[in-house]
Amino acid sequence: MDSKAFWKLSYGVFLLGAKAGDRVNACITNTCIQVANDPTRVAISCINKNYTRELISESGTFAISLLDSSATFELIRHFGMQSGRDVDKMASFQMPVDEFGNPYLGWAACAMLSCKVVESHDLGSHTLFIAEVVDAKVLSDNAPLTYADYQDHVKPKPEKPAGERKVKAWRCKICGYIYEGPELPKDFVCPICGHPADDFEPIYE
Amino acid sequence: MDSKAFWKLSYGVFLLGAKAGDRVNACITNTCIQVANDPTRVAISCINKNYTRELISESGTFAISLLDSSATFELIRHFGMQSGRDVDKMASFQMPVDEFGNPYLGWAACAMLSCKVVESHDLGSHTLFIAEVVDAKVLSDNAPLTYADYQDHVKPKPEKPAGERKVKAWRCKICGYIYEGPELPKDFVCPICGHPADDFEPIYE
Repeated sequence: MDSKAFWKLSYGVFLLGAKAGDRVNACITNTCIQVANDPTRVAISCINKNYTRELISESGTFAISLLDSSATFELIRHFGMQSGRDVDKMASFQMPVDEFGNPYLGWAACAMLSCKVVESHDLGSHTLFIAEVVDAKVLSDNAPLTYADYQDHVKPKPEKPAGERKVKAWRCKICGYIYEGPELPKDFVCPICGHPADDFEPIYE
Repeated sequence: MDSKAFWKLSYGVFLLGAKAGDRVNACITNTCIQVANDPTRVAISCINKNYTRELISESGTFAISLLDSSATFELIRHFGMQSGRDVDKMASFQMPVDEFGNPYLGWAACAMLSCKVVESHDLGSHTLFIAEVVDAKVLSDNAPLTYADYQDHVKPKPEKPAGERKVKAWRCKICGYIYEGPELPKDFVCPICGHPADDFEPIYE
């Protein structure tokens, strides 16, 4: 069995939003497919230990936002790489909500589906939710973000250790002025905004 | 509800092969996702009236081939746009089979999964099969074909009606010789293979 074969399956990238009582959360997921057309049903798979999964099991509803090509790594990191049990992920965002109060993305998403769970199947590590779609909106004309796009273009590439990288210039963090050259004199003062060398960051080759 | 929102979901393109007793068939499907990792499970959705679905329900196994960027429209048309109840789709193909005898693609696929059904859920129009993966192989280094790739690059674009298209040259169907110009003289004879004008086909602008 070559487990690399699984990496060849194609997925999108989605924000899965849920609300149960006063608790609201959202996480990143890759699995959402239409599984029937009469009646219309979608299926999502959600890690059992996830806080969002807990909220969906409680409320029986969720909203899924289909990320588009304008989605940034920072957005995916915020919702996908920390738990709503540790951090209030929703604190700094103003998000639209569906009729159940489930949050969805008002930017960086090309479509949303508002869903009501009709079947839940516990598969050990994950729960498979089969859901009726009660509302669906197209949100942008941008191409949907695929998981392959995320891996190839959105996720930052590993950087070389600082010792192996060559500095080619310095950028003033205050105004953006660029000083060309590998070494910034310690007594340098930004000719645009007057800030000192300490406010400059390196730009690598 | 805007049903165009569903078109934004990302899918792959797969050949779904099944064998029950002496009956063997394969069809094209777009839904295959990994739905759990402990234990490893995949899910596929299959139209209830499909012959391949009938064979999977009977045998409890299937093989799924993940089409890659080298897959042609003719391959997808052969397996995806006719029923195994009307045509023996397998007649002209020599295909490898998994341990259950399910056929998979020896070309135009980047990976295959051999699967044993553990749960079936009838959703009206479709059956959702949840399956254990008993074997998995990487078959090529080509990129997986996505459904969006199929729509944009593999599926032929609708041609203009013949009356609206301009002929720019004629190709000898026997040897490939090209006669440049919109009108091929009726008494023309191919200078390479000696075949007459009847054996030429138009090339449109």
